[in-house]
Amino acid sequence: MKVVLTLDELRSAKSDLLSPLGLVPTMGFLHEGHLSLVKQAKVECKSVGVSIFVNPTQFGEGEDLEAYPRDLPRDLRLLEEEGVDLVWVPTIEDVYPTDSQTWVVVEELTKRLEGEQRPGHFRGVTTVVTKLFNAFQTDRAYFGQKDAQQALVIQRMVKDLLLPIEIVVCPIVREEDGLAMSSRNAYLNPEQRRAAIVLHHALGDAAERFKNGERDAGVLRRSMLAVIQDEPLARVQYVSVADPDTLEEAQGEIQRALLSMAVYLGDTRLIDNEMLGID
Amino acid sequence: MKVVLTLDELRSAKSDLLSPLGLVPTMGFLHEGHLSLVKQAKVECKSVGVSIFVNPTQFGEGEDLEAYPRDLPRDLRLLEEEGVDLVWVPTIEDVYPTDSQTWVVVEELTKRLEGEQRPGHFRGVTTVVTKLFNAFQTDRAYFGQKDAQQALVIQRMVKDLLLPIEIVVCPIVREEDGLAMSSRNAYLNPEQRRAAIVLHHALGDAAERFKNGERDAGVLRRSMLAVIQDEPLARVQYVSVADPDTLEEAQGEIQRALLSMAVYLGDTRLIDNEMLGID
Repeated sequence: MKVVLTLDELRSAKSDLLSPLGLVPTMGFLHEGHLSLVKQAKVECKSVGVSIFVNPTQFGEGEDLEAYPRDLPRDLRLLEEEGVDLVWVPTIEDVYPTDSQTWVVVEELTKRLEGEQRPGHFRGVTTVVTKLFNAFQTDRAYFGQKDAQQALVIQRMVKDLLLPIEIVVCPIVREEDGLAMSSRNAYLNPEQRRAAIVLHHALGDAAERFKNGERDAGVLRRSMLAVIQDEPLARVQYVSVADPDTLEEAQGEIQRALLSMAVYLGDTRLIDNEMLGID
Repeated sequence: MKVVLTLDELRSAKSDLLSPLGLVPTMGFLHEGHLSLVKQAKVECKSVGVSIFVNPTQFGEGEDLEAYPRDLPRDLRLLEEEGVDLVWVPTIEDVYPTDSQTWVVVEELTKRLEGEQRPGHFRGVTTVVTKLFNAFQTDRAYFGQKDAQQALVIQRMVKDLLLPIEIVVCPIVREEDGLAMSSRNAYLNPEQRRAAIVLHHALGDAAERFKNGERDAGVLRRSMLAVIQDEPLARVQYVSVADPDTLEEAQGEIQRALLSMAVYLGDTRLIDNEMLGID
């Protein structure tokens, strides 16, 4: 496994790799969710690249940029074990050259849910992902369904910008009790960690209702809200039943939906989601 | 020479071309200015691609999108004569897929000069150029110094987005009397055409003063203005002496500058420029 730091080193190392190349962009502090993306890339691609970069432009003011967990030696060991070919660990200056002033923005899809709660977040994401795609000149890129809106936004961006890249979205990987894996789970104290299962419970409860015939978006939304409000350590930021293509909030009867939520456990903000009516 | 219409056809035709590929993006109605870019690409690249697409998003309200001159058969004949390998003539739907909502924006450099006079213009330019770069996966791309700010903005964008593309900027090509070649010159009636030489005269006068030792930005600006105001058919929109890197309007003594201007002849808006103090 080759680990490179500068853009020039990346371009030179990249020329030795076989096609198709699969890229897994990460912010490091890797967990089984990231590694599931790497494993999928290993199955589908002749070579696999990973980027590790905590991207400052996707963090808002007062968010956890400074506190974001980092453990590069461990990350590199895990990636080596998975048989990754190339890892890029750029500095901020590599990704945002001096006088950098170019942004990639996706307009409609970023207005709701995470985009509404985190102004500027998706502008940071789409900009850095474009840079990573251009730097790696990748054929495929792997993202987790955990960040459902991000996956949708990036698919839209790739289509709109005529990028010759296939976006592969992999299922959410969960802890044994059902908590979706996230680098931010490391912030939770033991009590919060136990309470954090409430996101999965709320989604599971709504999915069960849907399976049993409930089709009213309002009923499903209220049922999720009730489950979370039953947990004293949890504070809801939003709970959503949305059109899975446009992310517009669903009203009345639904056949397909993206259930999603953001919930605080103490100062830690967790998200989770589930698709209804989609195979 | 292969002429293709859809993105799939382009990708398939592109795979037959030798590297490096040089791209000349155009809006058609080609003149010697465009052809000079093609000739330069022919010298430097193993294959040459050209796009012909009148990009609606770079025209503002009330601008000349509908009237913009078109002559595809003639364009294709000229490109064939130059030995171009591949021409892409996309439809709007190829370049802007349904529900398209992704934009590439360069912030600082687009605030002044053309960007100030034509709000949204550069957002349209940078977005379409990104799409063309991605569609062609080109190694080099050729732009004219005639659109000096555009060339600067695209160089900035390529650097910021880590695109592995070399931007080549070619000199302005002029008619015998000095008028910069432009598809929009076709709008001029014979009287306006004669008067249009005033842009070149104003630039030449200022360049001469600079050569003779004049270094004051204000004096150079006023001298250009005076030359244009002497021509009754011409109406100045702006006259600028700017820092050639940042495009900020220069004050006091200068060593290097971009002289530029936009001038109306009747309803036709013409631009021209000249670099001072740069080899």
